[in-house]
Parts: sequence; structure tokens; C-alpha cells
Amino acid sequence: MYRTHTCGELRLANVGQNVTLSGWVQRVRNLGGMTFIDVRDRYGITQLAVDETCEQKLRDAVQELGREYVIRATGTVIERASKNTKIPTGEIEIQVVEVTILNKSEVPPFTIEDDTDGGDELRMKYRYLDLRRNPVKNALMLRHRIAQEVRKYLDKQNFVEVETPFLIKSTPEGARDFVVPSRMNSGEFYALPQSPQTFKQLLMVAGFDRYFQIVKCFRDEDLRADRQPEFTQIDCEMAFVEREDVLSTFEGLAKHLFAEIKGVEFSKSFQRMSYSDAMNLYGCDKPDLRFGMQFCDVTDRVKGKNFVVFDSAEAVVGIVAPGCAEYTRKQLDELTLFVQRPQVGAKGLVYVKLQADGTIKSSIDKFYSPEELKELATFMGASQGDLLLILAGERKRTLPALSELRLEMGTRLGLRDKNVFAPLWVVDFPLLEWDEESKRFYAMHHPFTSPIPEDIHLFESDPGAIRANAYDLVINGVEIGGGSIRIHDNGLQQTMFEALGFTKEEAEAQFGFLLSAFRYGAPPHGGVAFGFDRLCSLFGGSESIRDYIAFPKNNSGRDVMINSPAPIAQEQLKELRIALVKE
Amino acid sequence: MYRTHTCGELRLANVGQNVTLSGWVQRVRNLGGMTFIDVRDRYGITQLAVDETCEQKLRDAVQELGREYVIRATGTVIERASKNTKIPTGEIEIQVVEVTILNKSEVPPFTIEDDTDGGDELRMKYRYLDLRRNPVKNALMLRHRIAQEVRKYLDKQNFVEVETPFLIKSTPEGARDFVVPSRMNSGEFYALPQSPQTFKQLLMVAGFDRYFQIVKCFRDEDLRADRQPEFTQIDCEMAFVEREDVLSTFEGLAKHLFAEIKGVEFSKSFQRMSYSDAMNLYGCDKPDLRFGMQFCDVTDRVKGKNFVVFDSAEAVVGIVAPGCAEYTRKQLDELTLFVQRPQVGAKGLVYVKLQADGTIKSSIDKFYSPEELKELATFMGASQGDLLLILAGERKRTLPALSELRLEMGTRLGLRDKNVFAPLWVVDFPLLEWDEESKRFYAMHHPFTSPIPEDIHLFESDPGAIRANAYDLVINGVEIGGGSIRIHDNGLQQTMFEALGFTKEEAEAQFGFLLSAFRYGAPPHGGVAFGFDRLCSLFGGSESIRDYIAFPKNNSGRDVMINSPAPIAQEQLKELRIALVKE
Repeated sequence: MYRTHTCGELRLANVGQNVTLSGWVQRVRNLGGMTFIDVRDRYGITQLAVDETCEQKLRDAVQELGREYVIRATGTVIERASKNTKIPTGEIEIQVVEVTILNKSEVPPFTIEDDTDGGDELRMKYRYLDLRRNPVKNALMLRHRIAQEVRKYLDKQNFVEVETPFLIKSTPEGARDFVVPSRMNSGEFYALPQSPQTFKQLLMVAGFDRYFQIVKCFRDEDLRADRQPEFTQIDCEMAFVEREDVLSTFEGLAKHLFAEIKGVEFSKSFQRMSYSDAMNLYGCDKPDLRFGMQFCDVTDRVKGKNFVVFDSAEAVVGIVAPGCAEYTRKQLDELTLFVQRPQVGAKGLVYVKLQADGTIKSSIDKFYSPEELKELATFMGASQGDLLLILAGERKRTLPALSELRLEMGTRLGLRDKNVFAPLWVVDFPLLEWDEESKRFYAMHHPFTSPIPEDIHLFESDPGAIRANAYDLVINGVEIGGGSIRIHDNGLQQTMFEALGFTKEEAEAQFGFLLSAFRYGAPPHGGVAFGFDRLCSLFGGSESIRDYIAFPKNNSGRDVMINSPAPIAQEQLKELRIALVKE
Repeated sequence: MYRTHTCGELRLANVGQNVTLSGWVQRVRNLGGMTFIDVRDRYGITQLAVDETCEQKLRDAVQELGREYVIRATGTVIERASKNTKIPTGEIEIQVVEVTILNKSEVPPFTIEDDTDGGDELRMKYRYLDLRRNPVKNALMLRHRIAQEVRKYLDKQNFVEVETPFLIKSTPEGARDFVVPSRMNSGEFYALPQSPQTFKQLLMVAGFDRYFQIVKCFRDEDLRADRQPEFTQIDCEMAFVEREDVLSTFEGLAKHLFAEIKGVEFSKSFQRMSYSDAMNLYGCDKPDLRFGMQFCDVTDRVKGKNFVVFDSAEAVVGIVAPGCAEYTRKQLDELTLFVQRPQVGAKGLVYVKLQADGTIKSSIDKFYSPEELKELATFMGASQGDLLLILAGERKRTLPALSELRLEMGTRLGLRDKNVFAPLWVVDFPLLEWDEESKRFYAMHHPFTSPIPEDIHLFESDPGAIRANAYDLVINGVEIGGGSIRIHDNGLQQTMFEALGFTKEEAEAQFGFLLSAFRYGAPPHGGVAFGFDRLCSLFGGSESIRDYIAFPKNNSGRDVMINSPAPIAQEQLKELRIALVKE
């Protein structure tokens, strides 16, 4: 028997009990007469106390202990002389009579503490040690909790969890697939799913009515910091629904999670915003609404004063940074450098300070009189003490750049509190995106997204203006999920494929089974998919999803712990009838 | 709005209500004055009634309806004149005022009925239609229910659900891996996991204490009828446990599922049996204990009577088929043919009938006197009216053959009721299996399985005799799951690898990260994995797992619905730097 209790559960009420604990040695403190050992498991830390007058055998065992040794200790629970109020077990300790070393440990390559001395690479290589640290362990415990609550809610709402296949078929549309050579069907490949999209639609055709799955998806993309080649979605679909049904169901899910996990209650409905409003007011389709600083378009008000930057600009747009009129030269230079970074891409930054003494100071003093600047400030809704920040240029570059600046100001002003949550549905996305390079339209979401009925007539006249019956859930500037009402009519689907430049044959070759299914009574349906990794990191208050994944890969798609990917045996290649091509 | 209610929920209490239903047309019956339409969704079937005196528009819509059309119908709930007691909605019908065709359907290739006219191939190709049929739909609903209950139980027991990676590393030991070429690391491959074995052990090293996951696993094996290239496991692991802890925890899970899903309560502990007892008494390691017919070894009692088949046999073993003394020549011939089938592999079958009139009739009358046969029958525990069935030959062939015969007799005698459940833990499996071809030992479970402590000394003298600290859960002759206490000591693991003929370098190359993890304080641990597909089919009372998988593959590993695997584009091969090898 390894333990009677965990290392997290003993309290004053247990004093006098004979107990056995097992766990890892967190710390050994030899104070002369007494040795104190902190023993740790998933549930907590308990202090063991060994008196130097104890038996030789016990003394020897304690002598040998090192950090991360695995031990079993037996003794009596006693009240501590000096209590530790920081931990739940801090009022007691164990007067130990026996310690058994269950396993030794080499000195770990970094400290197993909340703040470790280990760098990223080292921690990834020894992930199983990093996972012992509270912040990482707690991140995964949170993930577990969220997963259980998601299922509990959806199960109650009559959703059925159905496992869709992992070995499916490669489709050229969309991101790049990971493929799996088939040994039994040589020359042929499976593909790993980028999402269960077509299968969940087939389940709707099959009459499953409400489907969900928490499921791994795969994308062979060049990785950015926050992307993983394998990631997890909460994937859902509903039949016989309109947009409102979907939004209210999943708003319900989000509220359930906020209440159960974070103790945050939302009494009102989540805010809604059209894609075009989001772009005009915040310069992006996932605005962080924890703070204001809406965009103000001043293009028509600033022209004709010989300031060539404004005069030649398609758009001149600004925000009001409240209370920032006292920003120093250095701070303003920092902001200018910020907007000039290639990722942001503005040429320069115009500022107008509405100083406390009533005067105005601006980088465009030369072109605009104090009265003109004052009028501009009033138009933008600024007050004394505020700072106007204005960008100008091509509209489709200026808005995103100002969006970045707005977020930066939000951060600088402490307006992006990770314990405040501002959920938002962004709706009415464009259905199609024009690609200049290939001179064709692409589906902004995917080819099965339904247009808004009153826009269908635009397929002939102005496809780019068609709004999709699509929606994203955005929380704190992070896209948590998105979905759409799907096309369930074969004729409309055909029109969509034509708009995407697919011939009938191409559409048939790629999506034949889905089109075929649609001929046998497809119900109206729609759904949503949430990025589970990101949802967890949002709830955990972290920017990075990596800590919320037990065994993540690095930016080259490598698992440095198991050293994968790796070469395979010649025999395996031969069985699969494939060969490596040398560069 | 598509519906106010589902097609399964209206009752007499709803009479008088104005309702809207949506669903599929199951059947249209035109009885002259009235047309009745059965409309179906996941939740049930409701009868719509349309009077011929209705508006022209409604009459036209009804006229057009065909099987599997998707419709929305509005009307008033009324009490039926002739009630249908077979369905929960059978007391009411809807007096329809409006029907809208939401989508048409071509005539489905087979009937959407509990007993369909569709063959296997056709149903696989149109799986989305097959899934509309109650038996298949209910199988997947059962699967959903079991999955939720598994999680509920394990969550309560403090297990943490952790997602382990799908893109891992190929290991030569064990079954064949599916591999995934890496584009970003050319010439290298990921492998899809055959199980999360090493990762769950790493989670134990990481201190997660109790882990579980319901997870897809992959094996590139030549498929038998009941095998799928991707299958689902309930994968679990616990730290600081001995065998008893694991067995009682998962016996608890099984009992929870039986109670919640089947309404079957087990008051007693599950039976335990050693591997060697199972082999000796039932000739296999997964005996069906719904019925008796234990083996009786009569080798020492039947020799020396000039019956060369027995005299030359290593083993002579029999069973008693109760009440079968009246079996006809034809029936006995069938049994002889049964045991002679290549899958069973016996040479012949000896029978002894203890006839009702007290006489004895046997295929070995010539060699044994009635008294001798009577004595044999008594030794075997037979009574008047019973039939002895005896096989002889090499022991390792005879026992499995008799096992098949025993199961066949159980089936013939109706002793294998799918509503009776006989769970059993088989324990003390051999640790190692000798392979004649490669002249080496293989791990019977896997290389991390711990030997029973008192057998460790046999590594030097008799490795084949070492018992593993391993266990299988067998229910009704089906292996539902299995697991073991793992090796957590690096020295013992080294010994194990040596017994398997691995050099230190080979072990390091294949399992280096696990061995390295074991150097940093691995706790004692053990676990289990259940075959989820099989568990579902057991609970559903089916022999085949295929109906319990939403989108299964056929015996060539093909998904005939999406037609996968399939060739991929030359460009994809080029990006992956692989080429197809022509035969």
C-alpha cells in the first residue's frame, strides 16, 4: 500500500492519525535537531518532520534523499509549531517513523518550482519534468475541467458525441494536408482531417440533429508562434436551425463555462457586431472590447491644408488615447517606431496632445491651427488631457495598423485585464475573398458556407459583396470560434462552386460524396467550431496556447522530447512503396 | 423557425396545441379521404394527417412528397382515432394546415427501415443513409452514452483527461505503424500512435497521478473482420498503485457502466482466474463464463487400450455437453466437421453418449468397454443424458480446438444469452513469449510490463516461466481491456530489454526518452486500456464492432463512402520529397 492520503488533504482534523503518503521530495531542510522534508504530489505538499533522535535506518534514508526522489513516508499527523498559512496542509506535519525510497532521481536539469530557472528549449525536452510545475500542471487541469463542462452542457442540450474518422481523403482546397501512405492500397494516401467539416455535415444528412466532438485536427502549415500542427477543436453542428438558434445555443455554452470555470456570470446577451462595423470601428474582425478607443474616420475633415500625407491618403483615421496628453517625446517616438514595424506597416504617426493647460501640441502644428486641431479633437470626442493618434494611407493597410496601435495603447493603459471578459459575436462576414494572384474568389470560411438569403442575387452582379451567414465568437480580441449556416440546397451549392471557379467535374471529384449526400434529403443545418487550445489559454489568462497542450511541438513541428519526426526504416518505406527524393 | 417540438415528444397532453415539426418523410399513405404522413427525426416518428378537403396548396405539397423528403409541417395536435401503441407518439397525430418541402430526396438506394433491403457494400457507400436507420443510430447513441458515463465516473475518481499527441515517432517493436511524412523536416516521418502507452507513462513520471483519455489509435495491420485501422481506446494510468488498486478502480468503472447503461447490478466482485487456469479449464485466455463445460483432462486415464489416437496423444481433453446424449448422427457429423475446419484444426472428434436408457454409445466402443466409458464419464462429472466430447493431440493445438468446440456447444445450447454478462479478470499472464522463427522472446503485452516480484529471479534460469503483473478484463468471452503494473525501475527495465534481446543502444534509440524520464523519479504505476468499440458492441449485444463506428472502413482499409485512400497530387509528393515506387 503506497498511501492512505494524498499530499494535499491532511488538516488539523487529522491530527493523531497514522498515515502513509507517497510523492516527490520537493525540499529537504536540515535544521540540526530536525530534518524537514516537503513531499509533493498532484494534490499538494505536506511537510514531513524527522527527529535526529530517530532510528539509524530512518536517519540513513533521510540522509540519502535528494530533490525529486520518490518516497513513501509513514508517521503520525501532528499540529505544526510554526504554521504555514500559504498552503492548505500548512497547519500540520507528519512525525515520520519510516521512509522508503521508491525511486531515486538524478538532479533535474531545472528547478521544479513555479518560477523555474529552465529555458524554453530545456523545458520542452524534459516536458515530463516541466509538467510537474504548478503553472503547467494547473493549465492542464483547467483544460480537463473545461472539457468535462463542455460535454456536460452539450450532452444536456441533446448533442451526440460522434467520433469522425482520422484517416480521410486529401482535398486541394484550403490549407495543406498531412498525408498517410496506405500500404494496403499502394500509391494511395489517406489525409488527416483539418476539421471534421464534411463528416459533421454528413451526420446532419444522417439525421443526427445535434452533433459535437472534442477532436484533434491537423494542418501542415508553416508554424507561427501560436500555431501547432495538431490542435483541438470543439466541433458542433445542428440541424433545423437558423443563425439565432446556433448563436443562442453556443452563447449558452460560453456562459456555462464562464460561470462554472471562472465564476463569471453574464446576465445580458453577448454583443453583436457586423464584420463591416468591426473593420470600420476597430480595424479588425476580432476587436478587443475590454476597452473603447473606437476609430474615428477624419479623412474628409483634414484634407486641403497642404499636409501632403493627409491630402494624398485614401483614409485618415484616428483614436483617442484618454489621459495620454502628457506622453513624452520618448513615448511618442516609441509609438512611432511601433507603428513603423514591418508587422504593423504604417509610414508614420500623427499625434495631437490636448494638454492640461488647454494648449495643444501636435506633430502637424505647421499645417493646422490650434483651432482646427481643437475642432478635430472635438469631432473625435476627445477631452482635455487626451492624446489623438492618427494614421493615414491606403485604407486596407491603415485600419489594421491602427488596430495594432489601439491594442498597444490598451496594453499600455492597463485596459486589457485578463480577468475581464468581453465576448462578442461578429456576424455577416464576406462570403468570398478575391485573390489577386490567382484571379479568383476563395471562400472566406469554406465552400459550404451559406450566403445571407437577401444577398443571393449578387452572385451574378457583385459576388464580392455577398455577405455570408457566418459568425465568429470573439473574446478579448481572440477568435475563440466560428461557424456558419451551411448550404443545404444542391442548386445553391452549384452556384457557389461556380463562383469559386470550380467546374462541375472538379467539384464532383473533391466533394462528390457530400454532393451526393445532399441529393437524399439534406436538412437545413449550421454549426460552429471552437479552438479548444485557445479557449483554455483564454480561461487560464495566458497568451500562449503551448502551456495548455500536454506535449506541444516547437515552431519547426518537432517534438524535441521524443525527437520526432525521425527517419524510418528502409523496410517501412519499401512496404509503403515510396522512396525519399534527395534534394 | 423550423420546429416547436421534435418528432418524438408529442403526447395526449399536447392535444389542442399548435405545433411545427420538421423531419424526413418515412411513409405516405393515401387512404382516399385522408393522407397520412409519418415524419421522422432522431427523436421519433409523428403521424401527420391531411384531409382531402384541405387547401389546394397543401394538397399539392402532399402530392409531391416522396420517401426521405425533408419537410416542415404545421398543425394542431389531435387525439388519434386508431392508436398505435408501438410508438410513444402513437396516441396523437397532427391535423396539418401547412407543409413546406425543405429539401427533396432522390429515391434512396435501400429502404430506411430497421430491416433494410440494402446489402453491406451499398450501406457502407451510403453510410449517411444507413445511419438514419434505428439500429445504427441507436448503436451510436449508445456509444455516446457510454462515453459520457466513462468520463463521469473517471472524473469523479480524480482522473485527469489529457490529450496525448497524434504525430509521434515510429517504433519497430509491436505492430506496424502508419507514418506521416514531414514536409518541414524532409526525409523524416511522424507515426500515428498505436496507443498512448509511453505518453501515459510519462504523465505518471510527470506526477499526474491519474490519467485517462478516450482516444483514437492506429494500426496498419492486415484487417480481419472485426479489426479497423483506426480504433478507439479508453486509456488509463494510475500512480502509486498495486494491482489490486487498478483492478478495483476499473471493476468500479465496469460496474458503473453496467448499472447506468444496462441496469445490471453486480453485487459481488468479478471472478479472477490465472492465465494458466484459463488455459487448462477453457483452452483460451478469454473464456466465456456464461456457461460451464470446463475442460477435463483425461490423458492419464485413457491410455493403454490400443486406441492409437489417444495412446499417441500428448493431451486427451474433453467436455460434457449436458443433455446432448440424443444428438443424431447428423449432429455429431456436424460437430466433427466443425472441429476439423482449418480455423479449429482438430483431426477428429470422439464422443460418448450416456443415453437415457442407461446404455452408452460411443465412437470408441471398439477400444473401451461400457464400464470403462462409464468410469470416464463419472470422472468427467457427466450424468445420464449427457454427451462427452473429447479431442486428442498436441496439447497446444488441442486445447484451443476444444475451446472452439465448447463455444459452439454453448451457442447450440442457447447458453450464450447476450443479456447475461459474465465478467472475469484473467491475471498472471506470461511475461514473455518465445518466437521460434526469430529465436527470441517477445513481450506478451509490451516491454514495460512488470514481472510479478517473486518471479524476477527467473530472468536468469527460465524467462519463459516468468509471470507478468498483467491482467485482462474478459466479458462473455470477449477481451474488453487489459493492462499491467509497469516497470518503474531502470535496472529492471534494462533486464527486461536484455531478455528481449535489445542491446543498450537499441533500447536507447527506441525508448530513450522514456528511459531518460525514468531517471528523474518515476513513481510505481500501472494502468489499463479498454477497447471502446468492442465495449460498445458488447453493451449493444452485437458481434460486430462496425455498427458502433460512425464511419467505418472495410476489410481493405477503404472508406468506400468518401473513396479513401486515394492518389494525391504530384505537387504534394514533391513538397514532401517522396516518390511513388512502381511495382
